[in-house]
Amino acid sequence: MNKTITIAHGNGGEENNELIKKIFYKHFENEILSKSEDAAVIHNGELAFTTDSFTVSPLFFPGGDIGKLAVCGTCNDLAMMGAKPKYLTCSVIIEEGFSTRELEKIVRSMKKELEINGAMVVSGDTKVVPKGSVDKLFINTTGIGEIEHTGISSSNLQEGMSILISRDVGAHGATIFAAREGIMLESSLQTDCASLYPQVKALMDAGIRIVAMRDATRGGVAAVLNEWAKGSEVCIEIDEEKIPVAEEVRGICEMLGFEAVNLANEGTFVLTVNKEDEAKALKVLKHNNENAQIIGTVTRQHDGKVILNSSWGTKRFLDLPTGELLPRIC
Amino acid sequence: MNKTITIAHGNGGEENNELIKKIFYKHFENEILSKSEDAAVIHNGELAFTTDSFTVSPLFFPGGDIGKLAVCGTCNDLAMMGAKPKYLTCSVIIEEGFSTRELEKIVRSMKKELEINGAMVVSGDTKVVPKGSVDKLFINTTGIGEIEHTGISSSNLQEGMSILISRDVGAHGATIFAAREGIMLESSLQTDCASLYPQVKALMDAGIRIVAMRDATRGGVAAVLNEWAKGSEVCIEIDEEKIPVAEEVRGICEMLGFEAVNLANEGTFVLTVNKEDEAKALKVLKHNNENAQIIGTVTRQHDGKVILNSSWGTKRFLDLPTGELLPRIC
Repeated sequence: MNKTITIAHGNGGEENNELIKKIFYKHFENEILSKSEDAAVIHNGELAFTTDSFTVSPLFFPGGDIGKLAVCGTCNDLAMMGAKPKYLTCSVIIEEGFSTRELEKIVRSMKKELEINGAMVVSGDTKVVPKGSVDKLFINTTGIGEIEHTGISSSNLQEGMSILISRDVGAHGATIFAAREGIMLESSLQTDCASLYPQVKALMDAGIRIVAMRDATRGGVAAVLNEWAKGSEVCIEIDEEKIPVAEEVRGICEMLGFEAVNLANEGTFVLTVNKEDEAKALKVLKHNNENAQIIGTVTRQHDGKVILNSSWGTKRFLDLPTGELLPRIC
Repeated sequence: MNKTITIAHGNGGEENNELIKKIFYKHFENEILSKSEDAAVIHNGELAFTTDSFTVSPLFFPGGDIGKLAVCGTCNDLAMMGAKPKYLTCSVIIEEGFSTRELEKIVRSMKKELEINGAMVVSGDTKVVPKGSVDKLFINTTGIGEIEHTGISSSNLQEGMSILISRDVGAHGATIFAAREGIMLESSLQTDCASLYPQVKALMDAGIRIVAMRDATRGGVAAVLNEWAKGSEVCIEIDEEKIPVAEEVRGICEMLGFEAVNLANEGTFVLTVNKEDEAKALKVLKHNNENAQIIGTVTRQHDGKVILNSSWGTKRFLDLPTGELLPRIC
């Protein structure tokens, strides 16, 4: 391991996992942590518990701001474990000189998103640090949810199961990149940032058994699929052209040499269900976003790997992202 | 309220309370949050839930480091609500270029302190931000504890009850100040940073009914006493010379014009018990630190105020700290 921390260590991909394993998992070692799910399952399996710190830059961007992102990010991690978001803490670190009007705007966004989740902030912490010690404002939100659907896990995938995506991918990463670089697009491109609990509830209400589910944040869809392939020791085969990518996102990817499957999302999730549930699950997802799609299948072709199949019959491995992806994306 | 956030807004005193009330409490409004205790009581009164972000500078100081501070700070907030610390999340924001050796040292400190509390880290988050976006490293720890002693609250104080302090005050604030300013003292001055659950357990095991209990962090003993006086609408009268202050801390206070009662502590708590329990409680506290002391009584002299009585018979109000206290103390 390098002797200093690099931007790549926070990429949500290979180097990030290495840092987490070699330092945090090693010392904090326990069964719950090593499951490496979106949220820990605690208190006799009743509760899910998860944390996220948000350092996104800029603080305000098309379709959202750091406050909305924080509540969505934490509530989504709970929802992805089949849990109803209930209690959140909110801890802010503010740079001296920050505008109270902007702070209030951020807090209002949080409140609005809490309502969508039926959750509340029950404890908080506010730190103010001198100019230059932090770039404007960081937020940590940590949440507790009540588990309504048990057994969701990245180690549950089996041959023949279906992989679905809830909407087109990469919107958040592309939006932040464009906002940061001052790329003014004559388009409606905006973050996908949204609370996912309502869609999870709709899946449960439809009687669908959720095998695995994860929102494709840092590291994108590629990171989720690779973690599942490794976690379940199976192969995931994806039809490359079935992965929905919006026109504007595709444009930014081409401009920059990124792949949309590596871009961060903040309101887009990947879902594994049994083959017999795929049509019903797709219907539920399409009710929210018509770009939802069945994108692949679990096979045993190459256990531990993700394969992208093209319509011309070519195949390639989709690896865990590596290197310096966009920092401060969330 | 000022139009920008100032260092005073993070002082743990008057301006800090104003910021919290006018922005966070206002929008997040709910019954649990407005109780304003060290930790929220949730899940039918079974669990306590609390969050803290740590921005201390320097990261390493006599008697501790940011890792020890983080685990103590969060576990202590749980312990102060009569809860056994159980599950923690750990979220770190690291500046690009930070040393992995130092990171590992910090994580080791956390692990050691987790063991003292019988708690574990079950979920985490790691963000790496470009140079200049954060000063070295910040940690958020958020914790869940199982409540073993119910009914502890800052609104419970009644006339005749006794106020105790668990040890001499101000060591953490004085230590950080000295470390930051490069004041080399020919002394053993070090932070009081320590996990308080063992002492809370000893109080419970001795059958003492804990009325109110709070660790005197930012804003010091003065902030705790004022919050209790206001929260319970009573007067707290303190014998000024009974407040234990170590020689070195007194020296730093005189040098700088600080009052030891306003300095931050990280392993020192104030306790309210019924008069008949005071001797037993003092004995338990002295078993841990011989500087523990009974420092005052709850009266109705001036409801909502804290009075310091001197041995010469003079009286003065001890107010909530205001202005720019030491930033980045925790």
